Amino acid sequence: MDTAQTVSLIEDILKGNKTRKDLDVVEDKALRAALQKVSFVVLEKQIAYRSLNDLRINYDKIINALSCAIVLLQSDKNFPGYSEAARHSLEIISLELPFHNAALYLVPENPGEDGLVELVGYYNREEQRVIITGDQEEPLIHGPEEGIIGWVSQHRETALLGDVERDTRFLPIDGLGMQVSSLICTPLVSRGKFMGVLSFSHHIKGFFHEHDIRILETMGEFIAYYLYHSVLVGCAEESP
Amino acid sequence: MDTAQTVSLIEDILKGNKTRKDLDVVEDKALRAALQKVSFVVLEKQIAYRSLNDLRINYDKIINALSCAIVLLQSDKNFPGYSEAARHSLEIISLELPFHNAALYLVPENPGEDGLVELVGYYNREEQRVIITGDQEEPLIHGPEEGIIGWVSQHRETALLGDVERDTRFLPIDGLGMQVSSLICTPLVSRGKFMGVLSFSHHIKGFFHEHDIRILETMGEFIAYYLYHSVLVGCAEESP
Repeated sequence: MDTAQTVSLIEDILKGNKTRKDLDVVEDKALRAALQKVSFVVLEKQIAYRSLNDLRINYDKIINALSCAIVLLQSDKNFPGYSEAARHSLEIISLELPFHNAALYLVPENPGEDGLVELVGYYNREEQRVIITGDQEEPLIHGPEEGIIGWVSQHRETALLGDVERDTRFLPIDGLGMQVSSLICTPLVSRGKFMGVLSFSHHIKGFFHEHDIRILETMGEFIAYYLYHSVLVGCAEESP
Repeated sequence: MDTAQTVSLIEDILKGNKTRKDLDVVEDKALRAALQKVSFVVLEKQIAYRSLNDLRINYDKIINALSCAIVLLQSDKNFPGYSEAARHSLEIISLELPFHNAALYLVPENPGEDGLVELVGYYNREEQRVIITGDQEEPLIHGPEEGIIGWVSQHRETALLGDVERDTRFLPIDGLGMQVSSLICTPLVSRGKFMGVLSFSHHIKGFFHEHDIRILETMGEFIAYYLYHSVLVGCAEESP
C-alpha cells in the first residue's frame, strides 16, 4: 500500500466512510491496527459529541423548570382558592416554558365523586395564549379513567405518550382542541393530598422523552406545593 | 517515510504525544495533512470528554440541589419560629448534600441593630454531624461587615471564595472551628425580606466554582421560601 492509498484511507476514516471491517483489506498488520484505532477515535468523538448535546438539552430543560419554580415561589400573590392559584401558576408556566402546550386540572371544590378533575385552563403554544375556563362555560370534567387525564388522576402516576394515536388511554377530550401528537402528564400531590393534574403536550410525535418524566414530576412537586401553601397563606393573611 | 514509520507516527498521535508542529517532519504533503487531521480529531475527542465530564458534574449538582429542595418542601412539618424551621432545613441539607460543610445564619428575632445575623447551626462533613447552637450557649452573632457572613448579610450578594486566605473579607469566626479553605455563601431572601445567610465550605481550595453560584442561589431561594412559609403556615394551623 503506497502513501497515496494510505492517505486516501485515512481521509475516508475521518469522514466516517469506513467501518472496521472495511479495513480488513489493509495487508500490513501494524498499519491495519493503527487505522482501526483511528477509526475508533472518530467513533468515540461522535458519541461524545452526541452525549454532550443530549446532556446540554436536558440541562437546559432542568434550568428552565427551576426558573419556572423559582418565579412561581417568588411571586408575591396568595389566593383565596386553589383555582385562582392554579390560574396564576398556568400563567407563569406559559411565560417560562412556552415551547409546548400546558394544561392544569384540579379536583373540584365539591368533587362529589372520587377521582374527578376539572380543567382550570390551558396554554396554546401556537396561539401563544392562556385560555382560562370561565365560570360561565360548561366545566370540562374528566371522570376516573376518562382519557389519559382520568387515568393519571386515578393511578396517581406520571404518563408519557410518545404517540397519542398508539395509546388507547388517550381520548379526544385530552387534546383540548389543540393538535396533539405527544403528551406527558403528572399528578399534583402535596402532603399526600391529590390536588390535580399537570399536562404538557406537543404537535410533534416523540417530543417528550424518558428523562422528561423526572423534570415534569419536579415541576409537579413545586406546583402542588405552591397551590397548597399559597391558599393556606392567603387564608392566614385574610383572617385577622 | 515507510509504513513502519507511518504506523509509529499514528500511534504517537493517538496517544497525544505529537503536536501539530511535530508533524512538520512528514515530507509528503498529503500524508502530513491527513495526520494533522487525525491529531485534530484526537484533540476534539479529549475536549468533548472533558466538557461532558464537567457538564455531568454540574448536572448532578443541580439534581442534588433539586432533590434537597423537594425533600424540604415535602417535609410535613411546620414550625412556630424561624430558628426551628432553619434547624430542620439544616438537617435536610446535611442529609442530601453531605459532601461539604454547611452553616445557617438567621436574623435574630429582635435584631436591635440592622444587618446582624446569628448562627443557628452547622453541619461538619468530617464528623458527619449537625451541631445546633443551643439556647444555653453564647450566641454567635456576626455584625454588619464582620467576616464574609457579615459581608453577605450587608451586601445581600452571593460570595465565592476560592481560597479564604487570599480574601480579606474572611475572618476566623467564619470557619466555625472547621478546616475551611474555600467557601460560598448566599443571602436568604423571601418576598424582599432578608432572613439570613446559607454558607457551604470545604477544606480543599477551589472546591466551589463559578457555576456553583447559580446552584447555591437556587438552594437559597427554596430555603428562604420554606422558612417564610413553614412559619406562616405553622402559625395559621395553630390559630383556631
